[in-house]
Amino acid sequence: MINSQGEKDMRDKILEILMNNSNDFLSGEVISTQLGITRAAVWKHIKSLQGEGFEIESKSRLGYRLMAIPESLDQVTLREAIKTKVMGKNLEVHQTIDSTNNRARDLALEGADEGTLVISETQSMGRGRLGRDWISPKGKGIWMSLILKPDLPPDQAPRITAIVAVALRKALNKATGLDVGIKWPNDIIINAKKVCGILTEIQADIDRIHYLVVGIGINVNMLADDFPPEIASTATSLRIAMNAWLDRRWIIALVMEEIEDIYLKYTKNKDFRRLLDQYREYSVTLNKSVRVIGRDMNFEGFALDFDTDGSLLVKREDGSITKVLSGDVSVRGEDGYV
Amino acid sequence: MINSQGEKDMRDKILEILMNNSNDFLSGEVISTQLGITRAAVWKHIKSLQGEGFEIESKSRLGYRLMAIPESLDQVTLREAIKTKVMGKNLEVHQTIDSTNNRARDLALEGADEGTLVISETQSMGRGRLGRDWISPKGKGIWMSLILKPDLPPDQAPRITAIVAVALRKALNKATGLDVGIKWPNDIIINAKKVCGILTEIQADIDRIHYLVVGIGINVNMLADDFPPEIASTATSLRIAMNAWLDRRWIIALVMEEIEDIYLKYTKNKDFRRLLDQYREYSVTLNKSVRVIGRDMNFEGFALDFDTDGSLLVKREDGSITKVLSGDVSVRGEDGYV
Repeated sequence: MINSQGEKDMRDKILEILMNNSNDFLSGEVISTQLGITRAAVWKHIKSLQGEGFEIESKSRLGYRLMAIPESLDQVTLREAIKTKVMGKNLEVHQTIDSTNNRARDLALEGADEGTLVISETQSMGRGRLGRDWISPKGKGIWMSLILKPDLPPDQAPRITAIVAVALRKALNKATGLDVGIKWPNDIIINAKKVCGILTEIQADIDRIHYLVVGIGINVNMLADDFPPEIASTATSLRIAMNAWLDRRWIIALVMEEIEDIYLKYTKNKDFRRLLDQYREYSVTLNKSVRVIGRDMNFEGFALDFDTDGSLLVKREDGSITKVLSGDVSVRGEDGYV
Repeated sequence: MINSQGEKDMRDKILEILMNNSNDFLSGEVISTQLGITRAAVWKHIKSLQGEGFEIESKSRLGYRLMAIPESLDQVTLREAIKTKVMGKNLEVHQTIDSTNNRARDLALEGADEGTLVISETQSMGRGRLGRDWISPKGKGIWMSLILKPDLPPDQAPRITAIVAVALRKALNKATGLDVGIKWPNDIIINAKKVCGILTEIQADIDRIHYLVVGIGINVNMLADDFPPEIASTATSLRIAMNAWLDRRWIIALVMEEIEDIYLKYTKNKDFRRLLDQYREYSVTLNKSVRVIGRDMNFEGFALDFDTDGSLLVKREDGSITKVLSGDVSVRGEDGYV
């Protein structure tokens, strides 16, 4: 059992050394000298890592060699996988947490840097949009929250959600090769089913955003019966869509790369029109008959276009155009609205 | 010296009893029986209250009678003064604090009710708009933050600031009888100088506001040399404008009444047009030549109107109309822009 923070740090250091030398055997003596601990302590940590699922070959005289890492998310292996400069560079991995958005918010209030990423294997109180629950079964998806601090007025926050939606669409398309779409405002869709959601929470005053917490939930390795009945017909996972198991570390790394690329470009050139063109290209909502259910509205219409603030422009039967900033928009398909 | 929370609670209870019986003498025995403490303990608290500035007459055989309360703000006396149902009902009074907005934000995150009010006699890190400092000299002004939880989408947050601006204008007009104006977006003005500012901070997701913290700073009893040189020419206080000292408790109560009245009406009927008419009436910005200095803009124009989202519509020399959502707007007066 490894309990204290000091012991956890030592475990991480040993794991880092093994990862950086995985072609060779490393003797317990080299490791113990490097870290200033006894060979017995090294051995204890190796046993413990093996217990976590790390395959570590151990040969007398030669020492230790890392052969394979477990699928469970881990600060050390994830840090190794993420190649970006900003996004995900500061990383916190939890086994369980109430909500990664809550934790990221607390970190932002404490002054955490832009790009700080909080990931948990499961969430006990995961939230979706409109106060809904978000199902986060242990180890089967990516439940994470990213802190962003764009120098923007608060009315432009929806643009950041659109940027993340485009980045997620690109990353999941790269990961699967499948046709991935964006359903306004921020659902990522495969085969007309939701595979990923975004919950952006902001802290701002009238003039500027203090920080954004972008919560991202990706259904990765869930099977059909992992979904509760009420969402089983509208939700899917990458595994269901691909008929294959996917490595979450790789997907997290892809997502961080795409967000970093698009977000840094946007915050530099502030050219939202180009981004909006991409958003339009990936949209499954545009040029469709839609039903809008919002705070004070419930109507059908035709999804005409997106406005530069990220809102949806819907043409109604009487020819008038309604600007939709929030709420639910269902797209009419062959079997009704989905 | 009264240090522990239990002792503070007992002090508050004794003060409440004295306030509720201020026409009569109350014997130490009655008080001690009612609170289950010794007469000596009652006497110790009376001495301590006198030390705080409460004038308490003490007659042998008759007991104690409250004659006058000090000007300093106090949870018990302030609670007595505030007659509203929601606004200021939950109340926290501090002697000193970093920022009442920070404290109110923490309370909101812990689930504090709408209407919770945080007041401090001084702030060590008071904030104004656009990252500026806010001067909060001890005991000379009202430095407070109110938690609101309107069921609104985040793009309507500026409306709440407008509501508070109208309420403050009304309250300060009642308190002084003077011509009080609103300078867009949220400065309260007397004699073309700023007497009060509002700093609204929000926490929201794309669909709804979680909470707003409305920071309100009112310069009440400051004299000209209480202002630092860099704002001396643009700031004023109620005392300077009235040439009279004002009771802060009374002004806080007036402000809470006006906010409660206008805010509850608005959140019930959602009729922002009526509110906007009042805002227009009090505006010192409208129909004036203005200079706009914003994030990416710096231009002169004519302040035409307010839009329904609370933004300012400014007509430029070339006839085009620019919508201003944030930034600084100076009004051209006889001596240049102020």
